[in-house]
Amino acid sequence: MPENIRFAHRFDGITGSAIREIFKLIAQPDMISFAGGNPSPAALPDQDAARIAQQVLAEDGKRILQYGATEGYPPFLETLKPYVENMLGCTVPAVLPTTGSTQGMDLLCKAMLDPGDAVLVENPSFLGNLQCLKFYQANLVPVESDEDGLLIDRLEAAMQAHHPKMLYVIPTFQNPTGKTLAAERRPQIAALAAKYGVVVAEDDPYRDLRYAGEDLPSIKSYDRDGWVVFLGSFSKIISPGLRVGYMAGDADIIRKCTMGKQSTDVHTANLTQAIVDCYLREGLLPEHIRQIRKDYACQCGAMLSELETFPKGVRFTRPEGGLFIWVELPEGIDARDLLQKAIARRFAFVPGTHFYALGGHENTLRLNFSNSTIDQIHTGMSALRTLLEEELA
Amino acid sequence: MPENIRFAHRFDGITGSAIREIFKLIAQPDMISFAGGNPSPAALPDQDAARIAQQVLAEDGKRILQYGATEGYPPFLETLKPYVENMLGCTVPAVLPTTGSTQGMDLLCKAMLDPGDAVLVENPSFLGNLQCLKFYQANLVPVESDEDGLLIDRLEAAMQAHHPKMLYVIPTFQNPTGKTLAAERRPQIAALAAKYGVVVAEDDPYRDLRYAGEDLPSIKSYDRDGWVVFLGSFSKIISPGLRVGYMAGDADIIRKCTMGKQSTDVHTANLTQAIVDCYLREGLLPEHIRQIRKDYACQCGAMLSELETFPKGVRFTRPEGGLFIWVELPEGIDARDLLQKAIARRFAFVPGTHFYALGGHENTLRLNFSNSTIDQIHTGMSALRTLLEEELA
Repeated sequence: MPENIRFAHRFDGITGSAIREIFKLIAQPDMISFAGGNPSPAALPDQDAARIAQQVLAEDGKRILQYGATEGYPPFLETLKPYVENMLGCTVPAVLPTTGSTQGMDLLCKAMLDPGDAVLVENPSFLGNLQCLKFYQANLVPVESDEDGLLIDRLEAAMQAHHPKMLYVIPTFQNPTGKTLAAERRPQIAALAAKYGVVVAEDDPYRDLRYAGEDLPSIKSYDRDGWVVFLGSFSKIISPGLRVGYMAGDADIIRKCTMGKQSTDVHTANLTQAIVDCYLREGLLPEHIRQIRKDYACQCGAMLSELETFPKGVRFTRPEGGLFIWVELPEGIDARDLLQKAIARRFAFVPGTHFYALGGHENTLRLNFSNSTIDQIHTGMSALRTLLEEELA
Repeated sequence: MPENIRFAHRFDGITGSAIREIFKLIAQPDMISFAGGNPSPAALPDQDAARIAQQVLAEDGKRILQYGATEGYPPFLETLKPYVENMLGCTVPAVLPTTGSTQGMDLLCKAMLDPGDAVLVENPSFLGNLQCLKFYQANLVPVESDEDGLLIDRLEAAMQAHHPKMLYVIPTFQNPTGKTLAAERRPQIAALAAKYGVVVAEDDPYRDLRYAGEDLPSIKSYDRDGWVVFLGSFSKIISPGLRVGYMAGDADIIRKCTMGKQSTDVHTANLTQAIVDCYLREGLLPEHIRQIRKDYACQCGAMLSELETFPKGVRFTRPEGGLFIWVELPEGIDARDLLQKAIARRFAFVPGTHFYALGGHENTLRLNFSNSTIDQIHTGMSALRTLLEEELA
């Protein structure tokens, strides 16, 4: 390192090294990993993607390989806007394709946040976007939930107390808990956002992965004044490696995000936009989602049936969809210590403490079922049960 | 717009609207545009890309469509490091693939800059990256150049006076001037960076597009202590639409940029990395560059020969490569007014004032020759000459 180099202060609060270390340890071939959030290999349409990539480059290669507009690849925009409006059940003034929905979150923070601005977050929440908020030097204010998601009275109290710029919420099959925000709380959140002038980042990448129950209206569908920005993704239903997501909302907010994107990556690769566009135009998505849902429902069921046999005092969520189950162990067990022992036995998960903006809750952990086979789930969960039984003995 | 919404202060100094308006006006089918920085359509290898995209997805589709490492697609990293080291003529501790070299600049700013930090820039310089620096609320300090690039005594004086965190420099066929930093000044800049503790962002996307003269060593090749970060791109030699660039430098700086990238787009699309990787592995690049150089040299020559016939008092650079020629008109002519008249006559350029961090220099303009045919160059340049003759009459 150059002597006396001065890095930016936005790195002062950034650690992230614990998680990076975990993922390095896990990246071994014989490891059963419940740690990531990766789709199943079977859910990645490689044959269709190969055919479509060739096709779009043969048909529109000169445009695809040239600089594109920050606003998006024109044919994709034509497809994306009605797709999003149909999904959300409302019109949206503007849609911007992004390099994964991670970039949507980054651009929204870039548009909105100054250092020290208060941002309300679920407790726990997705650690990747908590990290993003920390890079913008936001003041993270956790708001408590029950089984039905964010507690509305707590949310309003936090808005009154902290005058936040933003609320970050994952309403459906939340990461990491798997919980879904109840239908009646969704219009309430939209109303509070308008009342207190708070931008809502509605991050909803899992909504199509429902295995039970009914689809719920988005928070965005109750938004009259433009305070809600919807962050969507094709990562969980087509491919995360393509890095294609989108943000949808008020035209002025999206315009600021578009200006921010100009200086971030100019535009999302035209080719990956064109592939998703063609996949949607060919009508392949509904049947593909049906297949993914079927597989993931079995994997989720297998993991839940194993959890039923766990020692008393172990509590867990029963998600109606998504990729994750959340586990609370008896007090006094630190999931970070447990993970070290788990890795020695060739399986892994993520300790839950990393998902809390202010830490704590060391007796929690997150399990992913989408990227393991039924056999791996039975083997890994048996090993986890055995380990827990030893700890509690 | 939501009532009383408060955007981030980083947008306070951002205009960019003038340029956006220009490009909207120009986006018309019968316009001869010397305004952009787009490669020629002939320089975009669409047939190879179509074949390669199909091939890499057929061979490694499950990995390409899955989440990848922030550090890059592993096969591409294997190819990229020796490619960069061979180009730079030195070993580099770390290389990070980026979503275009624009992202490399953004990540380096994210790693280094706090609001108010002084950053030295050429005067004029690439407006996209000036905009990026403004988003990080940097204090832009222009440093003067002569025909051989940055003036070393001015640079040292600015380092003493402003204690900058960073120097942003485009050493080869500079955007917008087409000038190249003289060989003897390159080690001097590396030495000054180490002496004053200044990170150098060496942005060198045009170096392979040389039509005359000899390749020069990079500033990076003289860097002993890690102060120089090299920003490279495949946009000008393979495709800008794929959005694949890279940054190379000190391992600790690149690690900070990698952490920043995690929260920006997680990783650059695996597919676009894989396509560039395969293009390099198949050895297609040298012949492709040879062809591009040949074409662009003709286009550049045609534009220069037209400029020879321009009225007295019009001065212009004679670049040995790259994409741009820089023109100084007689004092008193405002290139922005000229552009309005030019657009009415169906041709366009970019007024030079937009490339100056502090504005001014209204009598300058930038011409691009890569994205116009020889015929278009003769027609458009004749129209520009006529327009100027009328202005000066």
